[in-house]
Amino acid sequence: MRTVFTLPDLRSARLPFSGMVGLVPTMGYLHDGHLSLIRRAREECEHVVVSIFVNPTQFGPSEDLSKYPRDLDRDLKLIEPLGTDLVWIPTAESMYPQEYQTWVEVEAVTDPLEGAMRPGHFKGVTTVVAKLFNAVQPHKAYFGQKDAQQVAVIRQMTRDLNFPIEIVVCPIVREPDGLAMSSRNVYLNPEQRKAATVLFRALSTAKDVYDKGERDAGMLRQIMTEVLASEALVQVQYVSCADYDTLEELDTIKEKALLSMAVFLGKTRLIDNFVLE
Amino acid sequence: MRTVFTLPDLRSARLPFSGMVGLVPTMGYLHDGHLSLIRRAREECEHVVVSIFVNPTQFGPSEDLSKYPRDLDRDLKLIEPLGTDLVWIPTAESMYPQEYQTWVEVEAVTDPLEGAMRPGHFKGVTTVVAKLFNAVQPHKAYFGQKDAQQVAVIRQMTRDLNFPIEIVVCPIVREPDGLAMSSRNVYLNPEQRKAATVLFRALSTAKDVYDKGERDAGMLRQIMTEVLASEALVQVQYVSCADYDTLEELDTIKEKALLSMAVFLGKTRLIDNFVLE
Repeated sequence: MRTVFTLPDLRSARLPFSGMVGLVPTMGYLHDGHLSLIRRAREECEHVVVSIFVNPTQFGPSEDLSKYPRDLDRDLKLIEPLGTDLVWIPTAESMYPQEYQTWVEVEAVTDPLEGAMRPGHFKGVTTVVAKLFNAVQPHKAYFGQKDAQQVAVIRQMTRDLNFPIEIVVCPIVREPDGLAMSSRNVYLNPEQRKAATVLFRALSTAKDVYDKGERDAGMLRQIMTEVLASEALVQVQYVSCADYDTLEELDTIKEKALLSMAVFLGKTRLIDNFVLE
Repeated sequence: MRTVFTLPDLRSARLPFSGMVGLVPTMGYLHDGHLSLIRRAREECEHVVVSIFVNPTQFGPSEDLSKYPRDLDRDLKLIEPLGTDLVWIPTAESMYPQEYQTWVEVEAVTDPLEGAMRPGHFKGVTTVVAKLFNAVQPHKAYFGQKDAQQVAVIRQMTRDLNFPIEIVVCPIVREPDGLAMSSRNVYLNPEQRKAATVLFRALSTAKDVYDKGERDAGMLRQIMTEVLASEALVQVQYVSCADYDTLEELDTIKEKALLSMAVFLGKTRLIDNFVLE
């Protein structure tokens, strides 16, 4: 496994790769969710590139950029045994030098949900992903379904800008009690950690009702809201039942749909989702 | 020479190319300026791809999209003898389908000059060029110095977004009397065509003064303005002496600079420039 830091070093390390190249973009502090992406890339590609970059442009001014958890040594130890060929760890200064001034923006699909709660977040995401795509030139790129709107936004950007890249979406990896893996879970104190399972319970309850035939999206939103309300520590930011691709809120579920939610547990913001197909 | 229309056909025609691939993006209605780009690409690359696409998103609502000159048969006859491998002629509907919603924007360098006169123009340019880059995946892309700000904007975008592409800038090709080649020159009536040489005369006069040692940018702007004023048919839109890379107006010329101007002759808008190095 080779570790590179600069763009020129990345390009020369990438040059001899032949056959399928897979990219797993991460912000580090890896958990089993990330590792599942790397394993999938390893299965499908001749070469696996992992990027580790806590992208400052996707954090709002009041968000947790400075305290976002980092542990590079641990990350590299987790990545190596999975057969990663190349790890790229760019610096913020090299990604966004002083004269930097180019942005990639996706419109409609970034408007609701996370986009509404985190202004500018997706502008940072699409810009950095476009930069990662151009730098690494992968054939496939791996993203987790955990960030469901990010997946929808990246898929839209990839289609719109003609990137010759297949976006592979991997299922959410969960703790035994159902909590979706997230680098931010380390922020939770024991009491909050216990309460955090309510997201999974809310989604599971709505999914059960869906599986029994309910297609009224308002009803599913109401069920999720009620389950979340049963947990006093949780402050709900949004609860959604939306079209899987456009993320427009639905009245009636007819095609592939997304149940999703964002809540605060203290100062920690958690998101989770189920796909209904 | 193969001509393709769809993105899948472009991709499969591009696939067997090995070695250096050069892209010459055009809006068609080719003149000797375009042909000089193709010849340069032919000299430097194993494979030459020419795109012909009158990009609607770079025209303002009051601009000349609908009457922009088109003659595809003539274009193909001009391109073929130059040894072009592949011509891509996408449709507007395939480039911008109904659900299209992604834009690439460059900030500071798009603010002055053309950017100030043509709001949204460069957003359309950078978006379509990013799409062309991703579709064709060239190693080198060829642009004419005629569109000086476009060159500065594309260079900035390419650096910022990590496109692995060398931007090759080719000199302006001029008519014997100095008028810069432009597809829009066909709009000029004989009297306007004669008056249009004043752009070259204004630039040449300022350049002579520069060559004699003048470094006061305001003085050069004044000289160009005076020469342009000698031609009654010409309405000046802007006259500039700016930094070559940032396009910020200069007080004193210290490094590579750009003399540029935009004028109206009747309803026809013409631009021209000289690089001072």
